[in-house]
Amino acid sequence: MVQTVNMNKDGEVNLVERELPELEKGAVLLKTSFSEVCGTDVHLRKGQLAGVPYPIIPGHVSTGTIEKINGEVSDIDGNALAIGDPITFLDVHETCNDCWYCLVAKTSTRCPQRKVYGITYSAEDGLLGGWSQYIYLKPGVKIIKFSDAKYLKSFIGAGCGLPTAIHAIQRSSIKLGDTVAIQGSGPVGLMAAFCAKLSGAFQVIMLGAPAHRLDIAKEFGIDQIINIDEYNPTVRVEKVLELTSQKGADVTIEATGVPSAVKEGLTMTRDGGTYTIVGQYTNAGDVQLNPHLDINKKHVTIKGSWGSDLSHFYLAVKLVEQYADSYPFLNIISDEYSLNQIADALDDVENLRVMKAIINPNK
Amino acid sequence: MVQTVNMNKDGEVNLVERELPELEKGAVLLKTSFSEVCGTDVHLRKGQLAGVPYPIIPGHVSTGTIEKINGEVSDIDGNALAIGDPITFLDVHETCNDCWYCLVAKTSTRCPQRKVYGITYSAEDGLLGGWSQYIYLKPGVKIIKFSDAKYLKSFIGAGCGLPTAIHAIQRSSIKLGDTVAIQGSGPVGLMAAFCAKLSGAFQVIMLGAPAHRLDIAKEFGIDQIINIDEYNPTVRVEKVLELTSQKGADVTIEATGVPSAVKEGLTMTRDGGTYTIVGQYTNAGDVQLNPHLDINKKHVTIKGSWGSDLSHFYLAVKLVEQYADSYPFLNIISDEYSLNQIADALDDVENLRVMKAIINPNK
Amino acid sequence: MVQTVNMNKDGEVNLVERELPELEKGAVLLKTSFSEVCGTDVHLRKGQLAGVPYPIIPGHVSTGTIEKINGEVSDIDGNALAIGDPITFLDVHETCNDCWYCLVAKTSTRCPQRKVYGITYSAEDGLLGGWSQYIYLKPGVKIIKFSDAKYLKSFIGAGCGLPTAIHAIQRSSIKLGDTVAIQGSGPVGLMAAFCAKLSGAFQVIMLGAPAHRLDIAKEFGIDQIINIDEYNPTVRVEKVLELTSQKGADVTIEATGVPSAVKEGLTMTRDGGTYTIVGQYTNAGDVQLNPHLDINKKHVTIKGSWGSDLSHFYLAVKLVEQYADSYPFLNIISDEYSLNQIADALDDVENLRVMKAIINPNK
Amino acid sequence: MVQTVNMNKDGEVNLVERELPELEKGAVLLKTSFSEVCGTDVHLRKGQLAGVPYPIIPGHVSTGTIEKINGEVSDIDGNALAIGDPITFLDVHETCNDCWYCLVAKTSTRCPQRKVYGITYSAEDGLLGGWSQYIYLKPGVKIIKFSDAKYLKSFIGAGCGLPTAIHAIQRSSIKLGDTVAIQGSGPVGLMAAFCAKLSGAFQVIMLGAPAHRLDIAKEFGIDQIINIDEYNPTVRVEKVLELTSQKGADVTIEATGVPSAVKEGLTMTRDGGTYTIVGQYTNAGDVQLNPHLDINKKHVTIKGSWGSDLSHFYLAVKLVEQYADSYPFLNIISDEYSLNQIADALDDVENLRVMKAIINPNK
Repeated sequence: MVQTVNMNKDGEVNLVERELPELEKGAVLLKTSFSEVCGTDVHLRKGQLAGVPYPIIPGHVSTGTIEKINGEVSDIDGNALAIGDPITFLDVHETCNDCWYCLVAKTSTRCPQRKVYGITYSAEDGLLGGWSQYIYLKPGVKIIKFSDAKYLKSFIGAGCGLPTAIHAIQRSSIKLGDTVAIQGSGPVGLMAAFCAKLSGAFQVIMLGAPAHRLDIAKEFGIDQIINIDEYNPTVRVEKVLELTSQKGADVTIEATGVPSAVKEGLTMTRDGGTYTIVGQYTNAGDVQLNPHLDINKKHVTIKGSWGSDLSHFYLAVKLVEQYADSYPFLNIISDEYSLNQIADALDDVENLRVMKAIINPNK
Repeated sequence: MVQTVNMNKDGEVNLVERELPELEKGAVLLKTSFSEVCGTDVHLRKGQLAGVPYPIIPGHVSTGTIEKINGEVSDIDGNALAIGDPITFLDVHETCNDCWYCLVAKTSTRCPQRKVYGITYSAEDGLLGGWSQYIYLKPGVKIIKFSDAKYLKSFIGAGCGLPTAIHAIQRSSIKLGDTVAIQGSGPVGLMAAFCAKLSGAFQVIMLGAPAHRLDIAKEFGIDQIINIDEYNPTVRVEKVLELTSQKGADVTIEATGVPSAVKEGLTMTRDGGTYTIVGQYTNAGDVQLNPHLDINKKHVTIKGSWGSDLSHFYLAVKLVEQYADSYPFLNIISDEYSLNQIADALDDVENLRVMKAIINPNK
Repeated sequence: MVQTVNMNKDGEVNLVERELPELEKGAVLLKTSFSEVCGTDVHLRKGQLAGVPYPIIPGHVSTGTIEKINGEVSDIDGNALAIGDPITFLDVHETCNDCWYCLVAKTSTRCPQRKVYGITYSAEDGLLGGWSQYIYLKPGVKIIKFSDAKYLKSFIGAGCGLPTAIHAIQRSSIKLGDTVAIQGSGPVGLMAAFCAKLSGAFQVIMLGAPAHRLDIAKEFGIDQIINIDEYNPTVRVEKVLELTSQKGADVTIEATGVPSAVKEGLTMTRDGGTYTIVGQYTNAGDVQLNPHLDINKKHVTIKGSWGSDLSHFYLAVKLVEQYADSYPFLNIISDEYSLNQIADALDDVENLRVMKAIINPNK
Repeated sequence: MVQTVNMNKDGEVNLVERELPELEKGAVLLKTSFSEVCGTDVHLRKGQLAGVPYPIIPGHVSTGTIEKINGEVSDIDGNALAIGDPITFLDVHETCNDCWYCLVAKTSTRCPQRKVYGITYSAEDGLLGGWSQYIYLKPGVKIIKFSDAKYLKSFIGAGCGLPTAIHAIQRSSIKLGDTVAIQGSGPVGLMAAFCAKLSGAFQVIMLGAPAHRLDIAKEFGIDQIINIDEYNPTVRVEKVLELTSQKGADVTIEATGVPSAVKEGLTMTRDGGTYTIVGQYTNAGDVQLNPHLDINKKHVTIKGSWGSDLSHFYLAVKLVEQYADSYPFLNIISDEYSLNQIADALDDVENLRVMKAIINPNK
């Protein structure tokens, strides 16, 4: 029997036991090493996402070791997988590769057919979420193998924030020498700031809170930190202008989820610069913009960045393998929770008491 | 003596006589063939632009024939200019080519030093506006020669809307096969629609009014016309969705000057598409946007497009030479006004009674 | 029984009868309307492609009407297909969507798993080529439906040259106002020239032969024609320079298959321009280039363009639907051959006696 | 009196005394801190550049402190300059900002009017080269001020190779996670490798010689070093393939000046990758390429990168200010020569005995 967590429509989470499934040809059974609690899971508990088939087993990004394989299955690099291999997999599944969005517009994160582990599957569909001792990888799920089992934990430290941030970074076209401002110091903001630094920015400015999150940003080498608990929006913008010879940031990336951040972020971006919006994952209301001052006269480029695809996920794995030995990915993890501590984990994430809460279902 | 029009701070326009100037070395005296009245001139009359040194001689884009040259002066192609040559010139002058915006950011339309004929020069500075029988071209003003004098008038038919539209088109990255929606049927909207068609769009949809402007759009081969006097915003968006298999336009270009158009325009743009804002030339207030629905989830790219530089102006001349024989550029011109009909011309433009009012100062 | 053409290793072509196949779930049986003979088929007859499992049924791009469907099958726009529908399909099949090239590098035309109808399938594998009265569309083959059956023939007039040309055009980033030189007047060159014109080029110069091909280019509105039978390479380059104020073409597209064309083409391209190579489909030997003069000092961008994917194929269908009523796509077709005239068709293509030879297997 | 070095047509270098010039309005007199001997100077001694008005004062990139100013002169950031300020200046002067290349094609490094300190000025034209105790900065020369005088020397350590490398890096569009191969370990290759690393490459492979140059590359953190003195071209390519899962480098940058490097470099670049040619500064002969295998089938992008403009130069200054305290820019400087050791300096550079020879004219 396998222990899993079910989340109901009203946000309740319960421990539920289920049978281990039979494997179809091409399927893989994963023994979960780590899963995560991300902001989306808080939204799921509050019922803020449409069309979720509760009860579900939450947990979209997870790592683990292979327990069983039916037939020959390869990772994305074409290597045959074996029992015991340390892996992760793309939670977004069944992007159709058969529709106009996937094949003509090449915007697969807008494909209407996409399914997501831990979000769009019902608990009745099988072990299709990470808050479970085992995860069932359906045939065709994209698997990436780690070069070493030690990355199973550091990868979850970065979590789903890393591929999301990588997508935003690619949309932002950062150039060598740029100043990049990051609004937000949660996992997406932190990873975006780190990737901006890696991508050639000479100065990365983070605007966020609370203090314990900003401390981790400092450990990742972020150049300038502005604690938004200490300054009002006007002063924050002035501080960014001071750091940029009164020009504003070349690139600003929004990772807050707060609509008013968009006005503030555009104001701190330079004429001809780029503003990328990646944090508005759920509908939190409107913002007032002045199209003349904020967009047209500023000659700015604004980019929405939605979700991530396999390329971002693959790069996230490579990035963790490249940098987790020299940067404190494990420090992002505030606490490790067992399956029966899930309610606490959700509370801690919701109240920003932790940077990243991870789940160890076999603890 | 030369007849010119002066516009005062309170919006009054008077006929004023001035001396013909001596030419500095490298300067050119132009006998004005045509100048135009554009939306900016209406804003100037209302005092809506900051820092204008009234009284001014309005008229930024103009054509004419060379009356006098002091020394050797060449056009942008390197050809020596001669008395009688039919030419136009870039109204934006003294872009410094010496500052961070010009040389590092390469965003010369945001250069703080730029001067503009007909806007930023006082009438006391000389014949530096087009509503005058003669125009003084200072040394260094960029000149483009027409291959034939017949284009002196058709170029003014397109007017300053053409380089503005070309810049917006370049920012929009239209691809072969795209559907492009254009909001606005004034000179910028019309020229943007025409350039979208030329750039490979299979379907160009114009949303505008009044009917006489839409008739000209039809003459330019615009595929679909939606008269905004006949439909409310919700229905307009539905019509664009119907024309695009419910996806929305690949590219939408805003050329209205109305803030609420921005919300409507984003709604009619497809996921992963591009929305270019070029019509918000003056501050007409705010618009409410939903960052989640309108930008982030839509994975859209929004681009502000400010002003135009020599490259857009040069291409505008080439485009008129290429197409003015087969497309009705002259039909854009509703009426030709003399210098003492300027007040009427301004009224007609302000009340949308005309598509394009042009000035013939030597009429 | 079904009539098909088999091509052997030694280039022989024979009429062979085969059974109509049973359909797997998701498969479609197509009654062939038209297939084509393209340059690749000539290479196949000469054994110039590696790894071809002779005997094969050649014919990669084909159109037809649906004879049978097993289960529900949709076209790429998501519409359910029905008996009698006029369609075409992407010959490139089973691009894996599961490897690094497909998912990380997003260069699916270099995916090692790709299979191609009419090339990489043996005749023993089934009716997997277009020179056959019926074609078996395996489950997962990407299908595009025509809005009208009249396009079944005009689409084959354009043939596989059109998606190939569209890919090259997209790689070339043609901008409004460009001069584009096209080397080669075969189907790829003709379609590239037409697409360049549609994409905003003000001047398209075609360099090709023989005269009957150039006549069709004129019918497609190509601005300038240089018959390479009349001028040596030096003179050809001079002629392009004359047409471009001695600067050279902004974009040059190679569609010849002749290595020496690359040197000539770079020489006729302007400093800072783009040179796209799409015609070197098989190994025809080396060319001598001077890296200093031809590339580095010229500050040029050179792009190889290999194959085409669904997005190019989809756009090809839309383009034919958009323009086949006003442009002479049917005139590209020099002759229509039955299955027992295949050897003649191959001879005619090889000797450039025809622009495009098409096959009507049910004639 | 000022000591300068004159180089004659036959390559001789002599110490020549000249008068200190009067300053025009807007001119600046620079007391030279350091100038450099770069590969171009070796080419100049051999008479391999066309149109050089010998005798010249060589030395194009130099640093110094301001000795005299006539009038108000600002640096590129708009700050007024003062006596004693530590500065550098763009050697490329009088890019016209008035021609088609500068203003329409925006390819100012191909502007026919550009003049270069130390190359295109005769010694009779004034102190217009860096191998001189003083340098005359003509009005309009673009000046950049260092934040600290300590960078006067580290900037020359990087030398003209840094802006050249930055231009090549920008042309190469390096993305986070790329593997970048650099052919050549001279100043351009070293700086390109360093900039590739800064731009997000996870792996930078340098192929060069001799050993002392490779040692400096290691100090700059280059990941993989292949000594070309130890391996033939076939083995070098194999080594790059081994380091890239047999795919080849995502981006390869040529900085060798040897034509045969182009064939080798294309072979080590992955399908769909980018190959940038920046080292072919003079005509060193031809190379044989196979357009099918090397370009078309590979679906590769090849970019020539010529010269550098103010934006690259400005970024070079910022980069030195950012990194010279933590990376060994001073170690690039093998030796510091006085004006009467110039012949030795040229010999040492020509024979690759040094990485970078710098000139201290006031030593």
